[in-house]
Amino acid sequence: MFESAELGHRIDKDVYERELPALRKALLDAQYENLRAARFPVVLVIGGVDGAGKGETVNALLEWMDPRHIAAHAFGPPTDEEAARAPMWRFWRALPPRGRIGILFGSWYTAPIVERVFKRISGGELDRRLGEIERFERMLADEGAVIIKLWFHLGKKQQKRRLEELASSPRTAWRVTQDDWDKFAHYDRFAKVSERALRQTSLAHAPWIVIEGGDARYRSLTAGRALLGAMRQRLDAPPSAGTRAPTGPAPAPLPAAPVDGVRLVDRIDLTQKLDKDSYEDQREKLERKLNLLLRRKRFLSRHSVVAVFEGADAAGKGGSIRRITHALDARQYRVIPVAAPTEEERAQPYLWRFWRHMPAYGSVALFDRSWYGRVLVERVEGLIPAADWQRAYAEINDFESDLAGHGVVVVKFWLQISPEEQLRRFQEREQIGFKNFKITPDDWRNRDKWDAYRVAMSDMVERTSTELAPWTLVSAEDKRFARITVLRTLCDRIEAEL
Amino acid sequence: MFESAELGHRIDKDVYERELPALRKALLDAQYENLRAARFPVVLVIGGVDGAGKGETVNALLEWMDPRHIAAHAFGPPTDEEAARAPMWRFWRALPPRGRIGILFGSWYTAPIVERVFKRISGGELDRRLGEIERFERMLADEGAVIIKLWFHLGKKQQKRRLEELASSPRTAWRVTQDDWDKFAHYDRFAKVSERALRQTSLAHAPWIVIEGGDARYRSLTAGRALLGAMRQRLDAPPSAGTRAPTGPAPAPLPAAPVDGVRLVDRIDLTQKLDKDSYEDQREKLERKLNLLLRRKRFLSRHSVVAVFEGADAAGKGGSIRRITHALDARQYRVIPVAAPTEEERAQPYLWRFWRHMPAYGSVALFDRSWYGRVLVERVEGLIPAADWQRAYAEINDFESDLAGHGVVVVKFWLQISPEEQLRRFQEREQIGFKNFKITPDDWRNRDKWDAYRVAMSDMVERTSTELAPWTLVSAEDKRFARITVLRTLCDRIEAEL
Repeated sequence: MFESAELGHRIDKDVYERELPALRKALLDAQYENLRAARFPVVLVIGGVDGAGKGETVNALLEWMDPRHIAAHAFGPPTDEEAARAPMWRFWRALPPRGRIGILFGSWYTAPIVERVFKRISGGELDRRLGEIERFERMLADEGAVIIKLWFHLGKKQQKRRLEELASSPRTAWRVTQDDWDKFAHYDRFAKVSERALRQTSLAHAPWIVIEGGDARYRSLTAGRALLGAMRQRLDAPPSAGTRAPTGPAPAPLPAAPVDGVRLVDRIDLTQKLDKDSYEDQREKLERKLNLLLRRKRFLSRHSVVAVFEGADAAGKGGSIRRITHALDARQYRVIPVAAPTEEERAQPYLWRFWRHMPAYGSVALFDRSWYGRVLVERVEGLIPAADWQRAYAEINDFESDLAGHGVVVVKFWLQISPEEQLRRFQEREQIGFKNFKITPDDWRNRDKWDAYRVAMSDMVERTSTELAPWTLVSAEDKRFARITVLRTLCDRIEAEL
Repeated sequence: MFESAELGHRIDKDVYERELPALRKALLDAQYENLRAARFPVVLVIGGVDGAGKGETVNALLEWMDPRHIAAHAFGPPTDEEAARAPMWRFWRALPPRGRIGILFGSWYTAPIVERVFKRISGGELDRRLGEIERFERMLADEGAVIIKLWFHLGKKQQKRRLEELASSPRTAWRVTQDDWDKFAHYDRFAKVSERALRQTSLAHAPWIVIEGGDARYRSLTAGRALLGAMRQRLDAPPSAGTRAPTGPAPAPLPAAPVDGVRLVDRIDLTQKLDKDSYEDQREKLERKLNLLLRRKRFLSRHSVVAVFEGADAAGKGGSIRRITHALDARQYRVIPVAAPTEEERAQPYLWRFWRHMPAYGSVALFDRSWYGRVLVERVEGLIPAADWQRAYAEINDFESDLAGHGVVVVKFWLQISPEEQLRRFQEREQIGFKNFKITPDDWRNRDKWDAYRVAMSDMVERTSTELAPWTLVSAEDKRFARITVLRTLCDRIEAEL
């Protein structure tokens, strides 16, 4: 893969100066065309060997375009806020919104490649992580992002010469550190691992472009053209294609409804009850237990909790959340009520607005509704094309396994009530002064779609209840029973993790 | 001030249980009423002595209200992202948007009080910092926030007893640290300094309420009532009062126009020019100098740059910014183009959207338009009441002096051109393909307000050109001259700081 980037590519000054004006104008045109309509985010990933001109090339791109709408991010050692969360958090923070360009120096590729070079992970593990990256990028592309990945390459002799050159001039010597030489000592292995990573992750919707880094004019023109090509392709696509270009094969259709019509949700035993005395007794014990679990050193330094509450209107999500918060200190948790996304959130992939609320280690985030809106309300109400919610199951599983793989205890509750109980609660709410704002025409309308939600919920649980992040189906007809179930499950899951 | 919080206040269980239901209902009503209309943010500041029940009281408030719309923040040691910025940054991050409640454990009061207790700052310095806090809170209140400050107090003997009590039970012993005892050893001094701080900053729009912390029922009821009272007062104010309650005396009218009609802006010598050769020569030298300055260890660890570009349309703000970015590495700067605020930004005080872009030490933020929109476009177009832009001058000075006091080099450029030159540039833009999107009907409309902007700009410079953050008026009729002026000023200011 790197052979064609060791051919000694060069561009003459004349050619460069003849070609540059048109390229600059075309880049600027493309940038502004995308910006004005806020059509798509451009994610430009920069990788490659030291001394191959990564920084200089990006500086050139920024000079050619309007730097006001481009943000470059360098990923050095994580800050302590980043280190307290799953590693992808820092990259989600840096994603450009629609219409803008984000340049990522270093990226999700850095850690797996470096760890494999130094044999801290096995080849199998590298493959697994590259697979994760592939799915992540596919999701970004499906969400509308244009992704371009530039790899700046130098042959071994070339790199040595380049590092020596930089080190010998007092003006550039600061750029060459011992770290660079240490890495150079592993050149062959680095090339081998990188080649494998690039090969596996160079796909139509997120291709790698390997650029020989020896000649400044060659590499800048090549990078500029690659960026322009990718943007123009999307800008010139027929408008009927929308802002999105689906990247993968169409998702397989969902399995047909079971022939006997029985869904998972029908198996929840809604008759389960708890009397007041045993409720009070268990509640107190469980609250104390939860409180103590969350104060353990191990929890504080290496774990967090992300709890999701879903269920029909009036199923008791709020009440269950309050049972939990009652056991906690205000400084340790945050409740995130999920309503319509804000305009900043709408300019990003749909999972962005949940990533931004990810708690630091030692803390608890309680989501009152969640990313599952994608396969519940957005599906049932037809707010998005079917392909979008169909791919969401796998995207959500990836997201949650990413969290679970980094110390986050992901707990998901579906609170189930009968239509009759819901009606009773709606009527009660209408009568109680401070609760009647909680009942809106929407709630009544949703009731009419009871069956559609029943199907959506069954599909959701079937496809997203994983070993790492299982669903707990809670019989919520009796509030006491539901609250104890939630508290106990939460305690059990955290305890199992510690 | 603390005497009435050492009277041994207590509430009987009977009384408590009789009063609580009504208080809870009223708090919930007030919370929802505010939430539905997103009327105002509630900032609840929590301070006081250890062991006085701060955490327990806040937990009670959260239990009584709907915790989904309340966020509690504890301010321990700053994270490294926080430590790399002016200290107020972390508090701005935590401000609740309109409609919500933010509870701040520890706050802008903690540092000045603690530093004075341990004699790291003088009494005069304490006064100065309390003065800053007073103006900050006044600004928040003027921007619509309801501010309530609760101080939990215990007499000396009471605190000692309380700490001993906590330390003696295995279930609570973890809560008492050596740090708590060290602080207790300074009880008298802590009380004295706190008293002074509270006295100076207890004002109608942001009162301190001192609560005796010995009895859980007493302190919870008192805190709940204080919160309710403040919220109800605002909710029940006549709608004509709007969401804002002006806190201070009306600002003094601006000085009348100078009798000879001559404004600052008229004194800018627009004939200044630079020929191409000396431009290229100086540009190269200055770019190199800037690049080296920004790589100095001292800059990287303790300073950042916030540069503001203001001026009429087509005055060359973008071009000047690009001259600077040309000298820098993409990883070290961010350009922030200021357009209409997003909905998340509109739910916050107007300075919030600039604070969120404050660069970390070692970095540069270039603002293409800025917070000065408040006293330029918003004033000229009548987008806000006169009182709002009139108070903005002082608020902006406070903001910038806060930055400058913590290593931020604040550099502000006003780029001036003549109306004739602007017309020429507009016409040129209309003719150049990739520039004609830059010219809109708004630009032509703004031209008609040339004189109003001239007055607004003169007032702005007069009132906000401070020693810490002076304005540089740039003659921009000649682009080369303007760009060199900007580069040189920037270098000089950074150099003077290092």
